[in-house]
Amino acid sequence: MNIEMIRAARDRLNGHVRKTLLLTSPFLDEIAGRRVWVKPENLQHTGSFKFRGGWSALSAMQPDVRKRGVLAFSSGNHGQGVALSAARHGAPVVIVMPSDAPKMKIDNTRALGAEVVLYDRAGEDRDAIAAKLCAERGLTLIKPFDEPQVIAGQGTCGLEIAEQAAAEGVTNADVLVCCGGGGFAAGVALALEADAPGLRVRPVEPEGFDDMARSLASGSIKSNSRRSGSLCDAIITPQPGDLTFPIVSRLAGPGLVVTEEEALHAVALAFTRLKLVAEPGGAVALAAALFRGDEIEGEDVIVTISGGNVDADVFRLALDRFGG
Amino acid sequence: MNIEMIRAARDRLNGHVRKTLLLTSPFLDEIAGRRVWVKPENLQHTGSFKFRGGWSALSAMQPDVRKRGVLAFSSGNHGQGVALSAARHGAPVVIVMPSDAPKMKIDNTRALGAEVVLYDRAGEDRDAIAAKLCAERGLTLIKPFDEPQVIAGQGTCGLEIAEQAAAEGVTNADVLVCCGGGGFAAGVALALEADAPGLRVRPVEPEGFDDMARSLASGSIKSNSRRSGSLCDAIITPQPGDLTFPIVSRLAGPGLVVTEEEALHAVALAFTRLKLVAEPGGAVALAAALFRGDEIEGEDVIVTISGGNVDADVFRLALDRFGG
Repeated sequence: MNIEMIRAARDRLNGHVRKTLLLTSPFLDEIAGRRVWVKPENLQHTGSFKFRGGWSALSAMQPDVRKRGVLAFSSGNHGQGVALSAARHGAPVVIVMPSDAPKMKIDNTRALGAEVVLYDRAGEDRDAIAAKLCAERGLTLIKPFDEPQVIAGQGTCGLEIAEQAAAEGVTNADVLVCCGGGGFAAGVALALEADAPGLRVRPVEPEGFDDMARSLASGSIKSNSRRSGSLCDAIITPQPGDLTFPIVSRLAGPGLVVTEEEALHAVALAFTRLKLVAEPGGAVALAAALFRGDEIEGEDVIVTISGGNVDADVFRLALDRFGG
Repeated sequence: MNIEMIRAARDRLNGHVRKTLLLTSPFLDEIAGRRVWVKPENLQHTGSFKFRGGWSALSAMQPDVRKRGVLAFSSGNHGQGVALSAARHGAPVVIVMPSDAPKMKIDNTRALGAEVVLYDRAGEDRDAIAAKLCAERGLTLIKPFDEPQVIAGQGTCGLEIAEQAAAEGVTNADVLVCCGGGGFAAGVALALEADAPGLRVRPVEPEGFDDMARSLASGSIKSNSRRSGSLCDAIITPQPGDLTFPIVSRLAGPGLVVTEEEALHAVALAFTRLKLVAEPGGAVALAAALFRGDEIEGEDVIVTISGGNVDADVFRLALDRFGG
């Protein structure tokens, strides 16, 4: 796993990925007490940065292997990213999803052409389900984060951040990355190490699912006790990956943790101030920038909004509580 | 009023305006039955394309005149665009707003540093109020649409559309522009005439406020009978402008008209499919692309989302009716 893989992924994604802008709002700057730059990956194809990793993985496969098809397990965003990437590569695709995933994510994954297999997040082993399907049908598993070409794809967002921050004259900043298994954080951290060494990744997680923060603090991989039950469904993972953790540990941290209420408040502020639809898990980095400023060092802060695939009822909840 | 003024405005806006992307969604394409390209000017500074015209006007003023200050009357978006442009040019600014404008727009205009003067849309004459304040304080009026430098600024969006459409291989398309007084439609039409002659502007208005459509159909300026009472507050104007109408009449049309329900439906689909917050008036062009396809000729359609300054209660209304 190295920067050359990320640069190669950028070449493969060129013309297929959306180069999202770097946005600002004087209102957010005022709340945060520093300049806030927002990288809206909710505007990426399929509504999250996960399309980058999906496209990177599909485009890196041998054509004859790809033709047999791919499988991904996903709470929704990785599944959509892989589904669209597979469809555009003409590859069959199966997505294994938890039955409590947002309805929109399940519906969209199907509409993008994928076969969706649902499982019970609390009682069933998704790895076993995936392995069985792969063996039966000759599918290739594309893991959501602990997979080099997926990390390389997510890292292309870091290359863009490095380039866009330099263009704005920002050379020293914390880069807040919404963190599940650490694929986004690892990819972005590798890209920044190479192209913007004054920018430092800070993984951000929701309270109760702060496995990465605790793993970074202790120096070894820690797990979450709960596996479900958060509005931040996009970034709930049992623990950091074996590939991602050493990278994040070497290059990023310490982790930041926000409450679910803070994430919802950030969703409402993204609505009001940025005109963006963020999902709660995709808004934890913005929440940390706005409400955990005392834990941030840089004069500037760059935040990723990692996804926008939120059901209307959850969005309404954010507006009801914080939408004015 | 000519293309050279638009190119000069582009030079003055360079580095200050956001070059918004051209977005797509396979789900929207399916509803529309053709390729739909979305220019999200709700992501522009101050949440609407009006920042372009505001910056263009402020940056074109003589410094000593600018220093005395500017005044704008506006239902909200033009006011915010002028307010931020004036603040960044160090110019005092007064915004005359109808008292029934969305609260968010009034609050934001104040927060951007402007003095807000409220008036009754049904009973008071905003022109008279504006003229009195300008005379008393030596302020320069920046009209919302019937003003050459404002039209030039809005036209910079058309230059971007021409360039981005060409990059996507789109050379023949209807360009749907949300239309109030016609400044956006006129500016974009002039830009496309010069840089993308295969793209044709179609102004889009809400039912009951279709003064431009009726004016285009009849060949002379027609007025609306009502002056308020639409969720599409951003694009309610009494009639097309004396400057804008001849341009729109020569280069654009016929006009398209959508219902308020269709505009709300488009707001919900922008939420679901584009992860964008659109205001109803800013979503009429998307609504026409999705629901009035039989009145559109091009194989491709390009739509502007002209603004995203919507109060939470109106957005909730769109989600309640169409958000799933």
